[in-house]
Amino acid sequence: MAIITLTTDLGDKDFYQAALKGSILSQLNNANIVDITHNISAFNIQQAAFILKNAFHYFPKSTVHLIGIDSVYNEQTRYLALKYKDHYFVGSDNGIFSLLFDDVPSEIVELNIMQDLKFLHFPLSDIFAKAASHLAKGGKLKDIGIPVHTLEEKMTLQPVIERDIIRGSVIYIDSFQNIITNITKDIFTQVQQARDFTLYFKRNESISQLSWHYNEVPEGEKLCLFGISNHLEIAINKGNASGLLGLNLGDIVRIEFH
Amino acid sequence: MAIITLTTDLGDKDFYQAALKGSILSQLNNANIVDITHNISAFNIQQAAFILKNAFHYFPKSTVHLIGIDSVYNEQTRYLALKYKDHYFVGSDNGIFSLLFDDVPSEIVELNIMQDLKFLHFPLSDIFAKAASHLAKGGKLKDIGIPVHTLEEKMTLQPVIERDIIRGSVIYIDSFQNIITNITKDIFTQVQQARDFTLYFKRNESISQLSWHYNEVPEGEKLCLFGISNHLEIAINKGNASGLLGLNLGDIVRIEFH
Amino acid sequence: MAIITLTTDLGDKDFYQAALKGSILSQLNNANIVDITHNISAFNIQQAAFILKNAFHYFPKSTVHLIGIDSVYNEQTRYLALKYKDHYFVGSDNGIFSLLFDDVPSEIVELNIMQDLKFLHFPLSDIFAKAASHLAKGGKLKDIGIPVHTLEEKMTLQPVIERDIIRGSVIYIDSFQNIITNITKDIFTQVQQARDFTLYFKRNESISQLSWHYNEVPEGEKLCLFGISNHLEIAINKGNASGLLGLNLGDIVRIEFH
Repeated sequence: MAIITLTTDLGDKDFYQAALKGSILSQLNNANIVDITHNISAFNIQQAAFILKNAFHYFPKSTVHLIGIDSVYNEQTRYLALKYKDHYFVGSDNGIFSLLFDDVPSEIVELNIMQDLKFLHFPLSDIFAKAASHLAKGGKLKDIGIPVHTLEEKMTLQPVIERDIIRGSVIYIDSFQNIITNITKDIFTQVQQARDFTLYFKRNESISQLSWHYNEVPEGEKLCLFGISNHLEIAINKGNASGLLGLNLGDIVRIEFH
Repeated sequence: MAIITLTTDLGDKDFYQAALKGSILSQLNNANIVDITHNISAFNIQQAAFILKNAFHYFPKSTVHLIGIDSVYNEQTRYLALKYKDHYFVGSDNGIFSLLFDDVPSEIVELNIMQDLKFLHFPLSDIFAKAASHLAKGGKLKDIGIPVHTLEEKMTLQPVIERDIIRGSVIYIDSFQNIITNITKDIFTQVQQARDFTLYFKRNESISQLSWHYNEVPEGEKLCLFGISNHLEIAINKGNASGLLGLNLGDIVRIEFH
Repeated sequence: MAIITLTTDLGDKDFYQAALKGSILSQLNNANIVDITHNISAFNIQQAAFILKNAFHYFPKSTVHLIGIDSVYNEQTRYLALKYKDHYFVGSDNGIFSLLFDDVPSEIVELNIMQDLKFLHFPLSDIFAKAASHLAKGGKLKDIGIPVHTLEEKMTLQPVIERDIIRGSVIYIDSFQNIITNITKDIFTQVQQARDFTLYFKRNESISQLSWHYNEVPEGEKLCLFGISNHLEIAINKGNASGLLGLNLGDIVRIEFH
């Protein structure tokens, strides 16, 4: 059964999500629609990119991922469909694709299935649903758009490396209040080269041990680990790390190797 | 695959939603159950009607829409199933149907698939699931109830028109904090007759331009438009209109044509 | 279509839920995944047990129920799959199973489908999804684990019976703010033996009448009833009982029969 996932900021209380799902089912009656989440903060493409980047590869190949963030029509924005690592993506070229992918996908098309986009009120239902259903049915990219070769670029704050130090920042706080930084395992390992380390944050907090599991320290104690996102994470075993440690989005963390 | 949508106030944390879904799947193993929303405020049939009215027509014909709001048994309430614009609806005759439809549906039945309703604790699971599954399988209305010809009437606050003025009110605030009024595009166009207008609200706020898209004004500025609900909406481009403008449910707005 | 239900504390905003669903669909493309809820409070196995215990039997036989609460690896915890009343369950043996079932299931296996659990970050996706998909396909328990005969025991606060008195406590407050106690209908009936009763709670509150429906008292008045959970429930007709009566989780209620 063809799978279409949804990542949007539409929330769970209005009729917008239903309008999108109904539109897909009207195109492809037996589509298997899976919500990644509809609780992205309004217009927050960084957050949407982080979530979808970590989620999409769990799905079977050929899954279609529809992204409904910041897709209101304007003259500059292009609506795209593309293929990346055998998955399909449909969304607005507002920078999110550059955040999602490590390299530019080989097959990208600008959707041309509708003539007059200008008066559309809800592109998710009117265009994205159509494009996603076409791809989920096994249709080709070239039949719904014209090839393009570049993506709108959006920058993220990358960690800064100075010899023995990595300076990173908090990019996500999850429902368990675990704190996720922009320091990936790759970057960490590259700089570490088998040395010891100390992770500093806030005024006086530090951690010098890498855990594998949240429960390797006593309940209520802090730890750091590379979680399922492969990003360095600061947590408290069964506790609210963000609240208790006072760490919020954008806060700086520093790793010193020695 | 037969589609059954759910619109309820059951929320997302209790077992009630699962009891409903499990009951449907026990009747119709391959039902495609789609949540419209379970986050209607408790017993709020106006809100449920607004959402379902705007959502149902996106779904394929023959979709069954189960409404689980204010359906606790009492001697006066009838449980109904009906057909409207080639869609099926199942719910309690508590006034919601009169809010949903522009005219009385031609086919309505009062459900008689259970003898003794009096001791039922959960009609959604016990009766509505059965009726919805029957209809989703292609079953007929007449096989699950006896014909009725009227619906419980519930009034909504309609906008008041006085020559060159429309006085309306706020009926819904969405997740983006956009403000939706009870002034439809039809009413607006009828009274406007190609004249200019000014929309007044709160003490000193006014808008004299109709936008097509939220992004036609600079970010943070207010606008009005007819959104996907075809109701006059007051919004702030990428901003929280309800909070910033102090407009809440029930507040009055006034349009003067000149 | 094979049904797999999910009961977790993963919430609705992160990528964890999607990782789990994607993993299941990668194993079993046409799985019908139904969310019981993902809004269990973090690590709260009592709450999860109450919800799943009340929900699972509504689903068709052979449904697989995946439980994702408190399942981080540690050396003591076993990951189990089992059969109970013709339903399958997969989860961590952290005590939840003893809360879910009235007796020890006859068929229980400790999952052995992965060799090295130690370095796993997300057992839900890595092990539970595989086990659940195997069972949903009609696979046997013995092919994914080795038989075990006991379950980790976890105690719940049971009501105390002293002759003509039952002393119970509040174990759940639902989305409508109805108050659910640990006094089941069975216990109540056993002790009552056709006598009158008075239910006491807080300082001065009491109820001496058992209702069948929330609307048997005027709107805004308190009542008690055995709801769909078959537990004694204190409610206010169309009102917020927990807030208005000041009853919270763990609070004591007392029934005197006379």
